[in-house]
Amino acid sequence: MNLLLVDSSELQGGNAVTLRDRRADHLRDVLHVTVGQQVRAGIVDGPMGTAVVEAVADDGITVRLEIRGPPTPRPCVDLLLALPRPKVMRRLWAQLSALGIDRILLVRAARVERNYFDTHVLQPAVYRPLLLEGLQQAMDTALPRVSVHRQLKPLVEDHLGALFPSGARLIADPSATRPVRKPILDARAERAVLAIGPEGGWTRYELDLFARHGFLAVSTGHRTLRSDTACIVLLGLLHDALAHGLSARQPV
Amino acid sequence: MNLLLVDSSELQGGNAVTLRDRRADHLRDVLHVTVGQQVRAGIVDGPMGTAVVEAVADDGITVRLEIRGPPTPRPCVDLLLALPRPKVMRRLWAQLSALGIDRILLVRAARVERNYFDTHVLQPAVYRPLLLEGLQQAMDTALPRVSVHRQLKPLVEDHLGALFPSGARLIADPSATRPVRKPILDARAERAVLAIGPEGGWTRYELDLFARHGFLAVSTGHRTLRSDTACIVLLGLLHDALAHGLSARQPV
Repeated sequence: MNLLLVDSSELQGGNAVTLRDRRADHLRDVLHVTVGQQVRAGIVDGPMGTAVVEAVADDGITVRLEIRGPPTPRPCVDLLLALPRPKVMRRLWAQLSALGIDRILLVRAARVERNYFDTHVLQPAVYRPLLLEGLQQAMDTALPRVSVHRQLKPLVEDHLGALFPSGARLIADPSATRPVRKPILDARAERAVLAIGPEGGWTRYELDLFARHGFLAVSTGHRTLRSDTACIVLLGLLHDALAHGLSARQPV
Repeated sequence: MNLLLVDSSELQGGNAVTLRDRRADHLRDVLHVTVGQQVRAGIVDGPMGTAVVEAVADDGITVRLEIRGPPTPRPCVDLLLALPRPKVMRRLWAQLSALGIDRILLVRAARVERNYFDTHVLQPAVYRPLLLEGLQQAMDTALPRVSVHRQLKPLVEDHLGALFPSGARLIADPSATRPVRKPILDARAERAVLAIGPEGGWTRYELDLFARHGFLAVSTGHRTLRSDTACIVLLGLLHDALAHGLSARQPV
């Protein structure tokens, strides 16, 4: 935990909060905090600053937040992900928020089993703590906005324009030869949405649907990676390309 | 399993082998192979070709290999990794071989707990099947060469020259601002070794030791990632940079 995240609902009027969950355990058992100590802290979807430890007790740790200013900027990457197996999805949540995603759209695809959507891994009570864990690791406050879509076609045909009005549209396809960075640098894109398919891949119909809506096929190279590994590599490459484009645009 | 991998020791003189392990389960239950069917196959550390199914029985599947030619080229990336927690290391094995690593050197660092080295996750009987699983996913035959080093200083001071005579030397450091691609493209490197530290980071002494031996500090950007996520992102960026450099050198 590199950043202590507090939800604004935990602050009852004032700026002090008594933590009694895993955050308190971490402050006590890993950071060994003492009264008066400062730690980096942030408000979920808000700004960052510091928290001053006011009391350390067996049943909780009280901190006073000194946090002002504007919220941290939201990440410039959206992810449209064919829902993976529940076990894989559980592993991904914290990694996705750590990597930095604005919107996570979990979609049904032809090769996604319908019962994957019945899992408790899609319940906010399960995934929200995992997303917060990733943010506390990566020192960010911007909680990804998660939505679940059981029908791909209406999502792509009717809603993508409003969801992603600008920026590059990419789709991961192991058979593609275009590197992730190319469409980003070519278009001088400042943000991007990336579609990642299921373990068995997108169908021809799905690939055509995305292509008709401006998605350019990209790949990590010649190796076929497991879906969760591919997801992490692709998001790493995408963030790198966006940062690279940004630095190329700004005078050094 | 996108490639059926067979060890040369399984071929008793001829080119047929009867599989009775998870490979047989996969051929039967996932690929539903029938007699006469061909699947992509390779010899561990050897060439790739096809396997023809000769018999499908309850207790095993017999295939005849049609594989000739030179071995697949070995990956151009070496990894020097401060040994992570056993649970993390277990998760990493298959992902590392899938991403493509020539040598994996697992090292002790000041912030690595000594008892991590006593885990069975470091026994070849445990990690070899996991490495093979990654190769079968990524369609490669080149098994990473694994070594374990309980002392960092003699390794870096006395053995790196022989192990890594050429290529770029990089060290991941979250506080660095140099992107992974820069030293690769600057030096037109065709291969690289990447050192990745423990969860608590390298010590100042360790960073200086690596710096004195030509390791340039690189990072993924501004976010602090969990060690296994960082490892996957960094290796993805490194492979991408090496492929990028290669394509820039060759006429299109």
